Amino acid sequence: MRRAFALAAQGPERGINPRVGCVILSPDGRTLAEGFHRGAGTAHAEVDALSRLAPGAASGATAVVSLEPCNHTGRTGPCAEALIAAGIARVVYTVADPGEASSGGAERLRAAGVEVAGGVLVADGEALLDDWLVAARLGRPVVTVKWASTLDGRAAAADGSSQWITGPEARADVHRERAAADAIIAGIGTVLADDPALTARTPDGRPLPRQPRPVVVGHRPVPDDAAVRRHPLPLTTLPGDDLAAELAGLHREGVRSVFVEGGPALASSIVRAGLADRLLVYLAPALLGGPRTALDALGVTSIDEAIRYRFTEVVPLGADLKITARPEGAR
Amino acid sequence: MRRAFALAAQGPERGINPRVGCVILSPDGRTLAEGFHRGAGTAHAEVDALSRLAPGAASGATAVVSLEPCNHTGRTGPCAEALIAAGIARVVYTVADPGEASSGGAERLRAAGVEVAGGVLVADGEALLDDWLVAARLGRPVVTVKWASTLDGRAAAADGSSQWITGPEARADVHRERAAADAIIAGIGTVLADDPALTARTPDGRPLPRQPRPVVVGHRPVPDDAAVRRHPLPLTTLPGDDLAAELAGLHREGVRSVFVEGGPALASSIVRAGLADRLLVYLAPALLGGPRTALDALGVTSIDEAIRYRFTEVVPLGADLKITARPEGAR
Ligand SMILES: NC(=O)c1ccc[n+]([C@@H]2O[C@H](COP(=O)([O-])OP(=O)(O)OC[C@H]3O[C@@H](n4cnc5c(N)ncnc54)[C@H](OP(=O)(O)O)[C@@H]3O)[C@@H](O)[C@H]2O)c1
Ligand SMILES: NC(=O)c1ccc[n+]([C@@H]2O[C@H](COP(=O)([O-])OP(=O)(O)OC[C@H]3O[C@@H](n4cnc5c(N)ncnc54)[C@H](OP(=O)(O)O)[C@@H]3O)[C@@H](O)[C@H]2O)c1
Repeated sequence: MRRAFALAAQGPERGINPRVGCVILSPDGRTLAEGFHRGAGTAHAEVDALSRLAPGAASGATAVVSLEPCNHTGRTGPCAEALIAAGIARVVYTVADPGEASSGGAERLRAAGVEVAGGVLVADGEALLDDWLVAARLGRPVVTVKWASTLDGRAAAADGSSQWITGPEARADVHRERAAADAIIAGIGTVLADDPALTARTPDGRPLPRQPRPVVVGHRPVPDDAAVRRHPLPLTTLPGDDLAAELAGLHREGVRSVFVEGGPALASSIVRAGLADRLLVYLAPALLGGPRTALDALGVTSIDEAIRYRFTEVVPLGADLKITARPEGAR
Repeated sequence: MRRAFALAAQGPERGINPRVGCVILSPDGRTLAEGFHRGAGTAHAEVDALSRLAPGAASGATAVVSLEPCNHTGRTGPCAEALIAAGIARVVYTVADPGEASSGGAERLRAAGVEVAGGVLVADGEALLDDWLVAARLGRPVVTVKWASTLDGRAAAADGSSQWITGPEARADVHRERAAADAIIAGIGTVLADDPALTARTPDGRPLPRQPRPVVVGHRPVPDDAAVRRHPLPLTTLPGDDLAAELAGLHREGVRSVFVEGGPALASSIVRAGLADRLLVYLAPALLGGPRTALDALGVTSIDEAIRYRFTEVVPLGADLKITARPEGAR
């Protein structure tokens, strides 16, 4: 299985499909063939491995796969059928396929008399699939809501100025976090006020190798000369009327993770809709007071309706703190 | 000097006067006498030590004192004069006397031909004197401003409910911090809204051995049946029109440290006046949104007027974080 993980890791980190690896073993334990999935539209790992064998060579063999073989006919046929047709006697996998259309592979294999064992090294299998798996289970991208605030929860001074609340170390970290996300989302309020580029950059302004797709939420149009229109990836605009559905739409396009960078109105809506899987707060050792809080109304009236999270990480970054929180009860 | 520190530590932890210890050494290094200060109105450490010697026995000896000998005639005579009269040849001390009336002892001794060395083990000497020294230098008590808030900076839900934002570990720590302070200050707004006892208690409600003096700030009267009137120590009320002067008044009564427990109006005034020597924030992993921020207006318009601190400690307490910050540039 560890070899299947290593093969899987050669697959693409982004996109609609997960990274999957497969090893075909003879009954006496020799490796007959290996395969992995190279991205949407290409062969699945099992089919990739089988394709390297002469007809009949996999008869009685064991297939070790890092994800439950699929059961649906997409751009490629169902892997369960391919394994059955090749005469595979035994299938070992880690994580069950979370897809609505694609799950059921293990059942199909068992019905055909194949011996099936799932849940092997499941924690490692989940770690490898990472955001793809969480997003597949949620039916939408994994959502990080980020803000920078002072110790008293302000995201800007009374006059709206907010450059810079946090120091250079925290700002560099924000760019690393942006680069790790598939998409970056800002409200049209922030776009009109600050004209952000929504790119991931080095401290001296050069673009990082990996860029998030820019997404702007709102009815007002993005100005023709907005910096975000010069982003290397094409701009997506969403109305924001049904955030859950719009996020599900991004997921269908292969977006596994989104990074929500405000402003307060959009961040509050995301939190209020229960869509924030991770809060990322850069807390500066400063006080501002005044009206410009990082979040505004959340629909909470009384203390027992407080939206509870748990702190999962607290890291000093220069003079600031990077605080990560996840919903109470979540992983 | 370490022996002088140990003697000093036997003195009282509270009150107008510092803890001071003194050792008298013969020219060949034998201990002739020891002394320490037992509190206002009693002999200073040097006089206490000298009083244990026969007249003339200290002639040519060295006095090792944990604070610069005083130079003013209070309820006891100036120690500098007592040392000179006893024929002491050499004085070694740590920290210079910060008092306006009492300083100048070293100068007086030198003028009388005594060899004087100050600044010995000064960091340890300062640590021993602790809040007494900082308060003496500031001319007012050391001020801690405490609040409990959610990650978005709210101290209460929209309906005013705030029990409990933080968990039992954080609340127990607040009581330990209260017990460590000489006085606890609340605004009349909080007293009228919450009727707090302003005592330091164990988790099951029993009083801790050490209690802070209760102080309420405001013009509106404290109700006759207010819980704070049942505090074991007498209640002080202050108008709050000149917080710096009123704090200096508490200092003259021997209050070295105060613990400001809100509400937002009073805490904001203290911060705004530059009187907050330490911020103590209990941060809960929850969001509330809405209007009830832990601090309100601070007179800051633009980001470059932000009131800057530095984080000096971040400690997890149960599910919460205890964050300590001190003014930028302060110890
Ligand atoms: N310190 C920080 O971390 C930080 C980060 C970002 C921004 N900021 C500051 O925040 C300010 C802008 O924030 P903002 O709160 O005014 O604007 P915003 O959150 O950026 O955008 C809000 C706008 O988004 C649109 N929208 C569409 N669907 C929405 C939904 N479901 N929920 C909320 N909004 C939705 C609405 O515009 P339509 O009416 O056009 O649909 C709404 O007015 C700027 O001053 C900026 O400097 C600070
Ligand atoms: N989460 C927490 O940590 C926490 C802690 C404490 C309180 N609270 C909440 O805070 C609320 C009460 O707070 P609050 O802000 O309304 O009242 P407050 O700060 O407790 O008291 C304010 C009052 O103090 C008097 N005052 C006198 N001098 C002042 C000065 N220099 N600056 C400010 N005030 C001065 C004024 O009353 P006069 O007009 O009579 O002079 C003023 O109205 C309650 O709802 C309580 O539950 C929360």
